[in-house]
Amino acid sequence: MIIIGEKINTSRKAIRPAVENKDTAVIQDLAIKQVESGAHYIDVNCGTFPFQEPELLEWLVNTVQEVVDVPLCIDTPNPEALERALKANRNGKPIINSITAEKERYNSIFPYVLEYNTSIIALCMDDSGMPETADDRLRIAEKLIESMTKEGVKLEDIYIDPLVRPVGTGSHYGLVALQTIEKIMNEFPGIHTTCGLSNISFGIPARKLINQAFLVMAIGAGLDSAILDPMDKKLMSFIYAAELLRGKDDFCMNYLTAYREGKLES
Amino acid sequence: MIIIGEKINTSRKAIRPAVENKDTAVIQDLAIKQVESGAHYIDVNCGTFPFQEPELLEWLVNTVQEVVDVPLCIDTPNPEALERALKANRNGKPIINSITAEKERYNSIFPYVLEYNTSIIALCMDDSGMPETADDRLRIAEKLIESMTKEGVKLEDIYIDPLVRPVGTGSHYGLVALQTIEKIMNEFPGIHTTCGLSNISFGIPARKLINQAFLVMAIGAGLDSAILDPMDKKLMSFIYAAELLRGKDDFCMNYLTAYREGKLES
Repeated sequence: MIIIGEKINTSRKAIRPAVENKDTAVIQDLAIKQVESGAHYIDVNCGTFPFQEPELLEWLVNTVQEVVDVPLCIDTPNPEALERALKANRNGKPIINSITAEKERYNSIFPYVLEYNTSIIALCMDDSGMPETADDRLRIAEKLIESMTKEGVKLEDIYIDPLVRPVGTGSHYGLVALQTIEKIMNEFPGIHTTCGLSNISFGIPARKLINQAFLVMAIGAGLDSAILDPMDKKLMSFIYAAELLRGKDDFCMNYLTAYREGKLES
Repeated sequence: MIIIGEKINTSRKAIRPAVENKDTAVIQDLAIKQVESGAHYIDVNCGTFPFQEPELLEWLVNTVQEVVDVPLCIDTPNPEALERALKANRNGKPIINSITAEKERYNSIFPYVLEYNTSIIALCMDDSGMPETADDRLRIAEKLIESMTKEGVKLEDIYIDPLVRPVGTGSHYGLVALQTIEKIMNEFPGIHTTCGLSNISFGIPARKLINQAFLVMAIGAGLDSAILDPMDKKLMSFIYAAELLRGKDDFCMNYLTAYREGKLES
């Protein structure tokens, strides 16, 4: 399971002032703790500062890579911010978060994937709006995969996000996301699927329960990456359990090691 | 989700003396509490008393149905005990737990399914021993389903148990069970799948975590019944969450009602 640590995002109350004031210690502490908790990538997002985003995103990249070696997930739709972040990047191949099949967004982001040889998160969304069914999502994913691989992007550098909509706005949206993940993983061996978790439970009570269950079911459907809080010990425990149950943990080694290291919360 | 309450089983330390001493109050209390917690069936098992099993199982059936109206899940491989329990039964159509494709067991149990018009739990096991792969299990299930439906048993009265083996003895057994469930539910629309939970985690630490994750993933794979402790609030909470995410809870009604009634533990 490829874990993308989501915590350095200015939409979070604690992060906004830290980025505004360039509080290096707060950001670096979060970067280190996420990596210690199991993050393979550190997402950086300062999208709530649209006018300063290029400068602040570059600062975030530099600040984070001073203290951790894992690659970054550069989270912006702003090409100028993206370019400054990519130029500053020294931590190995980053993921760009994200592209869609919307013509304008695709054309403004895709050149950076090629120029900087990055991985890419691709959302199942195009100019016709939010897709309703799993087949609609699959069609968009196929279009994105075809056009990116044609230009030389490898399948293993593509992370398809099924576009998770809240079950509170449509009780079929959980199943739609799960079916999309399963179909994509079956149809394109070697590709990755990823998603954020919290959107699924937006607006309904006992959200953690839904987030945990969704993550477990999505791993069951084949999900092999997620954008989440790696410092949430319970959530990480469920990842160990789910990977074991999905047959991805030979001799239960990862699970048993995590248990011995006190990482499982039961 | 069809919940079969597992608690009245003499292999449990608290139940053995209660049955031995015919302590009506203990048994009836557990029957009532399981139904209040959401059990649709009450399993009764006194297999640890092989010599008194016919008499004690009849006593259990009578004791339970004095206080609850839900049907029973009569859990014995002993034909004499089974017959006495079925004769005593007055709570609607019971489930017999269980038959296998082992010739002797099949021939000794199946006549009661027909004579008493019961539902039946059928384990994916035959005289060649414990099946290894999902396809092995599917073949046994197909054989069982074919021979029972040929005699007039309806698909909706059959509960296939994929035979859950501990991941500690083979780290592929989780995936094997999940694949079996998915294949059976796809191939035989209208049939049920069920299983006990605790076997999956036998011998490894933090068992509850594995049991919860397995239940959620199995519901993701199509499982629509389980033999479990309905008084385990956390487990029941995950069932509500998983059913919602599987698209089986229109307008999130069951989930939201459970939340309002204080049934969700998050």
